[in-house]
Amino acid sequence: MRKGELFVLYDIQSDKWREECGIFGIFASQENVALATYWGLYALQHRGQESAGIAVTDGTVMDVQRGMGLVNEVFRNGLPDMPAHIAIGHVRYSTTGSSLLRNTQPLLVNYSGGQISLAHNGNLTNAHEIREKLEQRGSVFQTSIDSEVIVNLIARSSQATIEEKVIDSLAGVHGAYCLVIMTETKLIGVRDPHGFRPLCIGRLGEGWVLASESCALDAVGAEFVRDVDPGEMVIISKDGVTSRRFAESDRRAGCIFEYIYFARPDSVIDGQSVYQARFNMGRTLARESGFKADIVISVPDSGTTAALGYSHESGIPFAEGLMKNRYIGRTFIQPEQKKRDMGVRIKLNAVASVVKGKSVIMVDDSIVRGTTSGKIVRMLKDAGAKTVHMCVSSPPIGFPCYYGIDTSARKELIAATKKVEEIRQFIGADSLHYLSLEGLHASICNIPEKTLCNACFNCEYPAPTPCERDCASNKFVFEPGRN
Amino acid sequence: MRKGELFVLYDIQSDKWREECGIFGIFASQENVALATYWGLYALQHRGQESAGIAVTDGTVMDVQRGMGLVNEVFRNGLPDMPAHIAIGHVRYSTTGSSLLRNTQPLLVNYSGGQISLAHNGNLTNAHEIREKLEQRGSVFQTSIDSEVIVNLIARSSQATIEEKVIDSLAGVHGAYCLVIMTETKLIGVRDPHGFRPLCIGRLGEGWVLASESCALDAVGAEFVRDVDPGEMVIISKDGVTSRRFAESDRRAGCIFEYIYFARPDSVIDGQSVYQARFNMGRTLARESGFKADIVISVPDSGTTAALGYSHESGIPFAEGLMKNRYIGRTFIQPEQKKRDMGVRIKLNAVASVVKGKSVIMVDDSIVRGTTSGKIVRMLKDAGAKTVHMCVSSPPIGFPCYYGIDTSARKELIAATKKVEEIRQFIGADSLHYLSLEGLHASICNIPEKTLCNACFNCEYPAPTPCERDCASNKFVFEPGRN
Amino acid sequence: MRKGELFVLYDIQSDKWREECGIFGIFASQENVALATYWGLYALQHRGQESAGIAVTDGTVMDVQRGMGLVNEVFRNGLPDMPAHIAIGHVRYSTTGSSLLRNTQPLLVNYSGGQISLAHNGNLTNAHEIREKLEQRGSVFQTSIDSEVIVNLIARSSQATIEEKVIDSLAGVHGAYCLVIMTETKLIGVRDPHGFRPLCIGRLGEGWVLASESCALDAVGAEFVRDVDPGEMVIISKDGVTSRRFAESDRRAGCIFEYIYFARPDSVIDGQSVYQARFNMGRTLARESGFKADIVISVPDSGTTAALGYSHESGIPFAEGLMKNRYIGRTFIQPEQKKRDMGVRIKLNAVASVVKGKSVIMVDDSIVRGTTSGKIVRMLKDAGAKTVHMCVSSPPIGFPCYYGIDTSARKELIAATKKVEEIRQFIGADSLHYLSLEGLHASICNIPEKTLCNACFNCEYPAPTPCERDCASNKFVFEPGRN
Amino acid sequence: MRKGELFVLYDIQSDKWREECGIFGIFASQENVALATYWGLYALQHRGQESAGIAVTDGTVMDVQRGMGLVNEVFRNGLPDMPAHIAIGHVRYSTTGSSLLRNTQPLLVNYSGGQISLAHNGNLTNAHEIREKLEQRGSVFQTSIDSEVIVNLIARSSQATIEEKVIDSLAGVHGAYCLVIMTETKLIGVRDPHGFRPLCIGRLGEGWVLASESCALDAVGAEFVRDVDPGEMVIISKDGVTSRRFAESDRRAGCIFEYIYFARPDSVIDGQSVYQARFNMGRTLARESGFKADIVISVPDSGTTAALGYSHESGIPFAEGLMKNRYIGRTFIQPEQKKRDMGVRIKLNAVASVVKGKSVIMVDDSIVRGTTSGKIVRMLKDAGAKTVHMCVSSPPIGFPCYYGIDTSARKELIAATKKVEEIRQFIGADSLHYLSLEGLHASICNIPEKTLCNACFNCEYPAPTPCERDCASNKFVFEPGRN
Repeated sequence: MRKGELFVLYDIQSDKWREECGIFGIFASQENVALATYWGLYALQHRGQESAGIAVTDGTVMDVQRGMGLVNEVFRNGLPDMPAHIAIGHVRYSTTGSSLLRNTQPLLVNYSGGQISLAHNGNLTNAHEIREKLEQRGSVFQTSIDSEVIVNLIARSSQATIEEKVIDSLAGVHGAYCLVIMTETKLIGVRDPHGFRPLCIGRLGEGWVLASESCALDAVGAEFVRDVDPGEMVIISKDGVTSRRFAESDRRAGCIFEYIYFARPDSVIDGQSVYQARFNMGRTLARESGFKADIVISVPDSGTTAALGYSHESGIPFAEGLMKNRYIGRTFIQPEQKKRDMGVRIKLNAVASVVKGKSVIMVDDSIVRGTTSGKIVRMLKDAGAKTVHMCVSSPPIGFPCYYGIDTSARKELIAATKKVEEIRQFIGADSLHYLSLEGLHASICNIPEKTLCNACFNCEYPAPTPCERDCASNKFVFEPGRN
Repeated sequence: MRKGELFVLYDIQSDKWREECGIFGIFASQENVALATYWGLYALQHRGQESAGIAVTDGTVMDVQRGMGLVNEVFRNGLPDMPAHIAIGHVRYSTTGSSLLRNTQPLLVNYSGGQISLAHNGNLTNAHEIREKLEQRGSVFQTSIDSEVIVNLIARSSQATIEEKVIDSLAGVHGAYCLVIMTETKLIGVRDPHGFRPLCIGRLGEGWVLASESCALDAVGAEFVRDVDPGEMVIISKDGVTSRRFAESDRRAGCIFEYIYFARPDSVIDGQSVYQARFNMGRTLARESGFKADIVISVPDSGTTAALGYSHESGIPFAEGLMKNRYIGRTFIQPEQKKRDMGVRIKLNAVASVVKGKSVIMVDDSIVRGTTSGKIVRMLKDAGAKTVHMCVSSPPIGFPCYYGIDTSARKELIAATKKVEEIRQFIGADSLHYLSLEGLHASICNIPEKTLCNACFNCEYPAPTPCERDCASNKFVFEPGRN
Repeated sequence: MRKGELFVLYDIQSDKWREECGIFGIFASQENVALATYWGLYALQHRGQESAGIAVTDGTVMDVQRGMGLVNEVFRNGLPDMPAHIAIGHVRYSTTGSSLLRNTQPLLVNYSGGQISLAHNGNLTNAHEIREKLEQRGSVFQTSIDSEVIVNLIARSSQATIEEKVIDSLAGVHGAYCLVIMTETKLIGVRDPHGFRPLCIGRLGEGWVLASESCALDAVGAEFVRDVDPGEMVIISKDGVTSRRFAESDRRAGCIFEYIYFARPDSVIDGQSVYQARFNMGRTLARESGFKADIVISVPDSGTTAALGYSHESGIPFAEGLMKNRYIGRTFIQPEQKKRDMGVRIKLNAVASVVKGKSVIMVDDSIVRGTTSGKIVRMLKDAGAKTVHMCVSSPPIGFPCYYGIDTSARKELIAATKKVEEIRQFIGADSLHYLSLEGLHASICNIPEKTLCNACFNCEYPAPTPCERDCASNKFVFEPGRN
Repeated sequence: MRKGELFVLYDIQSDKWREECGIFGIFASQENVALATYWGLYALQHRGQESAGIAVTDGTVMDVQRGMGLVNEVFRNGLPDMPAHIAIGHVRYSTTGSSLLRNTQPLLVNYSGGQISLAHNGNLTNAHEIREKLEQRGSVFQTSIDSEVIVNLIARSSQATIEEKVIDSLAGVHGAYCLVIMTETKLIGVRDPHGFRPLCIGRLGEGWVLASESCALDAVGAEFVRDVDPGEMVIISKDGVTSRRFAESDRRAGCIFEYIYFARPDSVIDGQSVYQARFNMGRTLARESGFKADIVISVPDSGTTAALGYSHESGIPFAEGLMKNRYIGRTFIQPEQKKRDMGVRIKLNAVASVVKGKSVIMVDDSIVRGTTSGKIVRMLKDAGAKTVHMCVSSPPIGFPCYYGIDTSARKELIAATKKVEEIRQFIGADSLHYLSLEGLHASICNIPEKTLCNACFNCEYPAPTPCERDCASNKFVFEPGRN
């Protein structure tokens, strides 16, 4: 086997949508802020595995360290090496094409007001237009990340203070953005008016922490204070925390997929425990599907909480019918398809003693392309499962996301081109039930239905998208870039 | 933070006993045997994470590639690059002191009979004595691994065939050994007369596979045929498989800890499904302890199957009260103790929405030093758990293992110096119940009690150990080397 | 010896001034332009060893690959991987402080006119002021390199064509700059009006090459065509080469140190063979010094050509009295001063059989701090040399350079604070002679004296410098930054 | 350009014979012996560039660190980390086939007498036979290096002391060997009875040093004491140095190529300055050839000393007609032959201003395959040289070496199949003169002719070789292995 012949094996998560980023910020003069950011990013690693970065300041000088890879790989040789009282960090997932070293965050620049560092989670839907306008006015761009757009807007703002500059710069920006911004003396957190992506505030001793998810607060021992509101900017300095509302929105639109798959179950987002939401999805699934079987199993790990809910509601015992290899990292195999199938056998294995001779309800969180689901069903049957009823704790995904999720091209979404019965046949399950959109909303019981974004299910985009679409006809004629 | 100040963080498993090795062998002219071994080692990665190696032969020449790290790290740049029809592989965990590059396996040597490659799982209790005798006869040793002892014995055997040489060499060897041995034309599997460590045979097309656990057969698509018997040697050549009994034992002594913790739940060892055994342990625990509570949770991932059994037997719902970070690799932190505690917060986090205000039964597989258990109990209470009843799916561990497990020094075994009530106080649980030895044996229902080794629980060592002991007084006066 | 205790050993060249950069560009549709740039940078490696980069374009897309280290280290895993017909490259030396990954060149940006890539050799003396002005107008800066200043000026130019934009942007720029600029369809070379740094044009088949030195043309098999004139811009496109004069200068000021030390002897710069210039310096030294001795030796490698000239003029035989270790790379030692002395013994060794009992004339090109010279003199005496007469093929260096050379702080220049006789005593030589400025100019016989910059010798800076000075009193009161 | 397409470029030295090893040892309780060995190996780096290793002992424990690459690469992360008073080191060059990690030296083993570490320079001509005999007696071999043979012989010796064991083990060994051997308390140096390879002793403060060449003594500041005699063993312990003659030889046979090419000019071997020998070779060449020309140039760096001697004797001025790139490390290019030619342009460049219009005498030390010589001649002519007379400071090489030199296969030796006039035509020189064997011996004036090995020139092998040959007919029918 020659070097050139080794290929990266797409892992089982490759058949999932991917969160694009996680962000973290800390202002704490009593703490090792670089180290706290390191641990915070660790806790947010599930939101991005392709690059990581940490920027710090001591009040005068800033430094940043960035690289490709997991958090522990990027900082293998140490963290930014200077005393500091503010730090921000970023983890990023991105498609192969743009996963370049120069696209890593946080960005760190000099501008007329001094130094500024910025990390961004989300996707600006009019980044291209703004970028063009800025270029017309003489800006140059060294990366393809939205953070560079925002930082140029800030640098060009004629407002006097950094807070005003940020607000000024966001006035013309559309789409999804949670930002952590660091100046020499301030840590600023911003959440877009729709509140697409999550951002919360925690207290750590005398200091303050910002993080995409509350699990990162737990990781550093910070106490959860509250979520940042959509359209809110929080400014943390040595004088404490102040808050400003910089924009109003007629439509809150928190990403519903955070509850289905992206966020960690131990996080609480906008007042809703992710764990409880998923558990409820399972319960609802049980009521909706009415499937009967010997056991309920999950596709680990993301399907497990819903499967437990299903078991609880239905009374059918939960069992571990599929075992996941805990050591799957970046594996290399030869590119032939045959070997890819073997790849799945490596990551997941059916527990024959559990499923043999049994009728099985298998719960997974979502189906994207459907190829992996088909392999898992076959694996269960090979291990002796009599019947496999598949339950999905989300509705069929028919539409791409423009707000910070790395979605597959629409033509690859199996639910965009196939009906449920066709999908069932494709994956070889004996039955297939998708959670209804109503059932999904009922499960996320702490959040009003109208304040969530369901566009990937029903094409009702809450904010402008970068391209034309015809939802009535359900025909997408666009798909610019990766969409 | 300077380079020199970064330390490896012992992960949560550091408070577990560690399997020392996994072995794999394949004879198959139609397959890419190096690649199959790679996947096989992947499936056995839980048995050893510090080094890996693969040796191959094409019938004339042998090559080996070995290195420190996980399987995907060691073979990042490719597998042994030659056509081959036999391959053997090895993964190894070892204590820091001896985890040197030159101690990696498989060993590959030239001797009077040609070339031979060998990988070993287990621990020879008289290796030191044999090594001294061999040195007296002029042998030199370049490593500190037992494989080098065995290969020297083989090389010195006056027997005619490789099979006879191997049998001859094992005649004076005591302790635990499963071996895969490769010559230019044969693949040989050996299991010691006590059968301490597991070894099984699988069929892959026209070829044959040997592996420590059946999950590795599944990984490469091989069909499980049977376990190798204690005292059996299987010889695989182009003429098929033959078997020889090379030794009798008055005492089968399969390692009971394989069922408790080491093996993967999807493996079947000596006819006993590991999953079912663990599930039964949980059920028995429920009956024995009689604890009542709102929920049953597990310390993921190894405690989960027993927790499900507990839930099933008791009717108390199972929930995911602790969430594990799936991206914990080799992390680096500053060495202060304070930071170690933070380490645990990174690897595990309590799910407050699950445990808040609840009485909780927490199931774990074993307690070694007890330090991690204490931290987890505190974490649950900090998250709002009203009471925490800890259930352990094994008896107290009081004695070290001499048969291939990397055990802590006896003085570090909390059960060697503290009574159960003292341990409960130490870890801060409201109740503590250990599975009884009888209950444990009842749970491993397919295996006769007398054919398992329980020495770590009751000091009844089934084979000579390398040192003096006084079980009656329960006072260990020895502890040579790491024990 | 712990990791943290290892320090980089400054090599013998650390007591030399360092050229800061080498640049290379190629427009050739029949060639592998990335590979040619790779070889070109190899030939220019003496001009910068800390980072390297290559940017390429196929007429539509641009890509760049940059990294820290030598050319063969940066491109160890391959060159930019796309078909291309234009490429530019850069090697850089820089002081430790600013040798960051993000300061590597070429820069590659998007601006209103498309993409542009740029590499720069030299130093803008008013970069700071321009940077501030640009920041006032809304620019942000991600690096500390002058290229980013220039590219922002280009992006802001209101001129229509790239040529006009470049000319427009250079109008307000002072100092030293040779540039290679790449657009999707053009390769542009620019040399500042003073012509501080060298740049030449070569022909390679149907294509064209730009390089800092002619030795890089030889390396890729290109034929030398001519030097780029000071104040000239050459534009290479599919239509061939055109030339524009964008600025006039009342003062040509080619760097005299290129002939003394920086450039490779096999290069020809502005019509003057570097080898012949150095040979002449040696001859002039012989006439000026009038030293008599048994042998002439050189401090290899840079002093050798002048030593041969000395030998030729004086009739005193040349011998290799000092041997250089050819394998000195990046060495690591403990930081104590004692070990530093050992360092010199590693890089250079006296040949006792050559110098024992002899009176020796030792020729070196320059003295910066004098510490290394002192060690070499002592080494020769230890090896038995009777007397050591040191001859330096340049005048005393008393003033820092602002035009692209990494000079020591003025206080470290031994000639800034000590007279020749004091220096002789400091280095322990029996005699010491510096080449006179007149003798130096006479040696560079093909170049009119008035067209060279001698500021480091006589403080007559031909262009504005970034700070106040009082040459009359020879008191420097400034030393901003490293100067 | 894909990874797989990059090939290592053989450098100019690839057309030279290669020394296979350099060894170093130190016994000094007042020194950092690991660091001293590091510097010593640096000074011996020209004797081997493919692997390096250092072993140390503190009197009780031994440790070794070995790796592939240059000394500074192998020890990039530090030296063996323990206090120590004895150390030995090794650098190795070897053909691609056997340059494996497991073949690196020093070897470190446990045997009946404790621990022993050993490094070897040379080649045992009966290693294969001894290896077979040892295997018959039960030894196993994990490497293909001769050191492993010797250490097995030592381990099997029935003698009482380590000194006697070593002597015993060498009794049956043929060929070339210089050894440094380390026990917990002693440093032993051994030179074979023919004295093929060099070994010398130095004094460093209260301690002692052994090294292949005296330049390594200079490097660590040790004073040269004397060469180890052929057939002598020196034993260094806390009681000082003792010496034993363990074998007599009827034929001293120091390698003549050490003086021609291998050793560094600043070394003195067996009383002969390498520099003076090479200078004399040049003088003799001048007398023998009688060539007249405008200038004498050398192929740097190895041809320079002889070229200076030629210039001195003939009165024709020496000039630097070829410039060598000082930064050539491990370069990567595409494998096509065209690119290889480019490779030579990278490593060497003609100085047109020196050679243009001139008749040139070019001095090189040897011609192996002749391909590089031909390219250099063409390069000089392309640069304008009128005529090129090539002078070689050694006789034609017609026979392979069996005593520790990595020679080309005989069929690749141009002088084995072509006459001088044919070679001249092949390389395109106007004249070609090889130094006569008599002239060579006359140049090495301090060494009696009969005590040198000339086998590569005249097929008179002073010791048994591993294969049949017919010198009378000058027909080699063997070439086992690489020969």
